[in-house]
Amino acid sequence: MKVAVMGYGTVGSGVVEVIDTHKEIIKKRTGGETLEVSHILDLRDFPGDSHESLFTKDFNDILNDPEVKVVAETMGGVEPAYTFTMKLLKAGKSVITSNKELVAQKGLELLDAAEESGANYLFEASVGGGIPIIRPMSQCLAANNIEGVAGILNGTTNFILTKMIEDGMTFEDALKLAQDNGYAEKDPTADIEGFDACRKVCILASLAFGKHVYPNQVETEGITNITLEDVSYISSIGVIKLLGQIKYISDDKIAAFVSPAVVQHGSQLASVNGVFNAILVRGDAVGDVCFYGPGAGKLPTASAVVADMVDAAKHINRKKIFGWSAGAEDYVVDYKESISVPFYVRAIADSHKIQSVFGEVKYLSRFGQPSKEIAFITDEMTENELKKKLEGIEVINTIKVTNY
Amino acid sequence: MKVAVMGYGTVGSGVVEVIDTHKEIIKKRTGGETLEVSHILDLRDFPGDSHESLFTKDFNDILNDPEVKVVAETMGGVEPAYTFTMKLLKAGKSVITSNKELVAQKGLELLDAAEESGANYLFEASVGGGIPIIRPMSQCLAANNIEGVAGILNGTTNFILTKMIEDGMTFEDALKLAQDNGYAEKDPTADIEGFDACRKVCILASLAFGKHVYPNQVETEGITNITLEDVSYISSIGVIKLLGQIKYISDDKIAAFVSPAVVQHGSQLASVNGVFNAILVRGDAVGDVCFYGPGAGKLPTASAVVADMVDAAKHINRKKIFGWSAGAEDYVVDYKESISVPFYVRAIADSHKIQSVFGEVKYLSRFGQPSKEIAFITDEMTENELKKKLEGIEVINTIKVTNY
Repeated sequence: MKVAVMGYGTVGSGVVEVIDTHKEIIKKRTGGETLEVSHILDLRDFPGDSHESLFTKDFNDILNDPEVKVVAETMGGVEPAYTFTMKLLKAGKSVITSNKELVAQKGLELLDAAEESGANYLFEASVGGGIPIIRPMSQCLAANNIEGVAGILNGTTNFILTKMIEDGMTFEDALKLAQDNGYAEKDPTADIEGFDACRKVCILASLAFGKHVYPNQVETEGITNITLEDVSYISSIGVIKLLGQIKYISDDKIAAFVSPAVVQHGSQLASVNGVFNAILVRGDAVGDVCFYGPGAGKLPTASAVVADMVDAAKHINRKKIFGWSAGAEDYVVDYKESISVPFYVRAIADSHKIQSVFGEVKYLSRFGQPSKEIAFITDEMTENELKKKLEGIEVINTIKVTNY
Repeated sequence: MKVAVMGYGTVGSGVVEVIDTHKEIIKKRTGGETLEVSHILDLRDFPGDSHESLFTKDFNDILNDPEVKVVAETMGGVEPAYTFTMKLLKAGKSVITSNKELVAQKGLELLDAAEESGANYLFEASVGGGIPIIRPMSQCLAANNIEGVAGILNGTTNFILTKMIEDGMTFEDALKLAQDNGYAEKDPTADIEGFDACRKVCILASLAFGKHVYPNQVETEGITNITLEDVSYISSIGVIKLLGQIKYISDDKIAAFVSPAVVQHGSQLASVNGVFNAILVRGDAVGDVCFYGPGAGKLPTASAVVADMVDAAKHINRKKIFGWSAGAEDYVVDYKESISVPFYVRAIADSHKIQSVFGEVKYLSRFGQPSKEIAFITDEMTENELKKKLEGIEVINTIKVTNY
C-alpha cells in the first residue's frame, strides 16, 4: 500500500526509517500488506538523502494520488498541518499524527471530518511518544469508569528534575545540560512552562471522558519555581515531578491541570527518571494501571506512528475507535476551588504561627535549614483555602501533594 | 446484545457485577450496544443470588441460543472449558477468557477454530489481570521487532518476596500471611513453583513472536529456595523478583523461562511491590516500555474480561487481530546453553579460590555474614558454564541477574 509522510524532521525521517527497516514485521502485522512510502512532503531540500526521488514540495501531489490511502503527518504546529489534514480526511485518506498541538487544538473537528468520510485519524504518538496509551485507555479499560489520570508527560522537565533530585544540580545547570544533550530546545519555554504537558493533558482528558478539552481550559504551571531547597525538604517523603492531572467530578465536569507535584516514595510515578514518561490511569474496577516508556525520541515516536499506520492499513474503509464530542463552556472546573489535596509549604514563619493557622502539620527539614525557615505538609484543602490561610505569612513556595 | 458467563467463581461473578454496574460506560464504548447477561453456567447452586433466574447447569442452553453471540469463559482449568469453548467458537460465537491454563495449552487450536468460523477468541484477562498488555503488544508495538519481554507475572510470589525484602519476614511466614490475606491458595504450589507464571510466559511468547509456546517448553523454577540471607546480600544492588523472561534469538528460535532473578535498583521492575504485576517489553525501535497494575483480583480481572466482551460486541462478524502458528519442536532453546547473564553466587569458599575460577568479581556482604561464606556477582556466562566453574565449590545458591 502506498503511504505518504508530511514533514521530514526528526519524527518524519524516523517514520521513513522504521518503515524501511521493519518490512517483515509490518507485513506480518498487517496480514500481508506492505507499506511503501511514495511521497515525502517537505519544503526543505535533502540532497543526497536515499529517498531523494520521493520528495515533493507540493501537498497536492499527495492529496491527488488516489493510491495513497494513509498519510503520516509529522510536521508539528497547527498550520499548515490542520489544513492539509482536513483536506486528506475529507478525501477519505487516513491520517496518522504525532502532532499533539494540532490534536489538542483541533482534534474535535478532525475526528468529525474523519467520521464523516469513513477515514481514520489516529494519534497514538501524540502522547507519551512510544508508550502505548491511547488504545489501552479507549479499549482495554472500556469497562471502567475512569476516576483520574496522572502523567509525567514531558521528558525534558523530568530530566531536569531528576538531575536536581539525584545530582543536586541547580535548575539552570540541569536545563543547560538538557540543552547540551539535545533534550531541550534553545527556547525551552514550551517544556519548562508546562505547555507541552498541557497539550497532552488535553488529549488524555478528551479520550478519558469523551469531551474535547482545549489548552486554554487547563491551568498550567511549569517548574521554573522549583529550587534545590524544595527538593531537599521533600526528599524524605518523595520527589517533585511535573504532573498533568485529570480528575472526574461528574459526567459534565472534570478538573484538568498541569503543575509540579510531590509524588510520594513507593508510587510507580516516583521511580520514573530522566527523559522517560509514565501515565497512571485510575479506574473504578481495575484500580491503578501505569504505562511507562520513552516519551519522545526519533525511533520511539516513529514506531508509534508506524503502528498506527499499520492499524489504518488493516482498517481501510472501516471506521476505527475514537471519537469525542464538544464540552460545555464550564466543562473544566477551576481546580483551585474544587480539588482538595495536601500541600507542601515553605515559608519564613515560626511554628506557633503555623500551628495556629493549620493545626497539626507534618514538618520537613533539610541540611542547612535557616532558623527562620519552615517547611511542612498541610491537611487536604483547596488551593484557594490554602491561599486564604497563608495570608500574612511570608511564603517562599507551595506545591501540591498527589495521592497517585 | 445477549451474553453468557460460564463459571460463577471470583472472576465470573465479577464479570456479571461489572456488566451490571457499568451499563452506561459500556453503552458508550460499544457505540450504543448494551450487554445483557442471559445465562450463567455453573454446576453449583447460588440460592438468593440476585441473578438466580439466569443460572443453568446445561451448557447446551448457551450453545443453542442463537441470540447469545458473546460468551465469557471464567471456569479455569483445561476441561471442560476447552470442549465448551471449541463448540462455541465453531458455532460462530465469540469467547472471552481469563483462563491462562487453557490459552497456554490450547490457544493455537482455539484461535484456529475462531479463525475458521469468523468468531473472536480474546484473552486480555489471562495475563496480568487488569493490566492492558495483549493489545498493546500486538497493536501498539506493531512496528517493532521485539527483542525481549520480562514480567512479574504472579502477584502471590511478588507479595511473598516483597515481605521478605521489606519486612525481613521468612519465606514461610510470608507465605502464611499471603494465605491469611487470600492472596495464596491453601495449596500454593502453582504460584510458588512458578507454574502460574509459566502459563503467562507461554501466552506472551506466543503473542510476541507468533508461534505457540507450551508450558512444558518453558523451564520453570519457583521461589522456594530464596532465603533472607540472599535478600540481604542482594539488597545493596537490587531486589529478587520471580521473572518470566522471553528472548528473541532468531526468527525460529527463542528462549523462554521462569526463575528468580536479581533486578537492579533503578529498573522499573524493581519498584513493583506486593500483589502488583508488571510487564516490560523491549522493542528495537521503541526501547523499553513497561505496563504495571493489579495482576489479579475479582474486579480488575473482570474489567479486562468485560472490555474484551465490549470489543467482541463491536466486532461481531469481523475477525479481530490475534493469531499465531505452531512452532517447531526445537523452537524454544535450552536457555542454560544459549543465554549469557551475570549470576549471583553464594557459597562456602575463600576469595582466592573464587578469584582463581572467576577472575575479578563484585563481592557482596551482609550483616552477620559467617567468615567462610562468600557472595558475589559474576561476569556474563551461560548457566551451564557457571555450573562447570562451580564444580568442587560448596554452593548455597545461585540466581540470574537481569539487564531489564
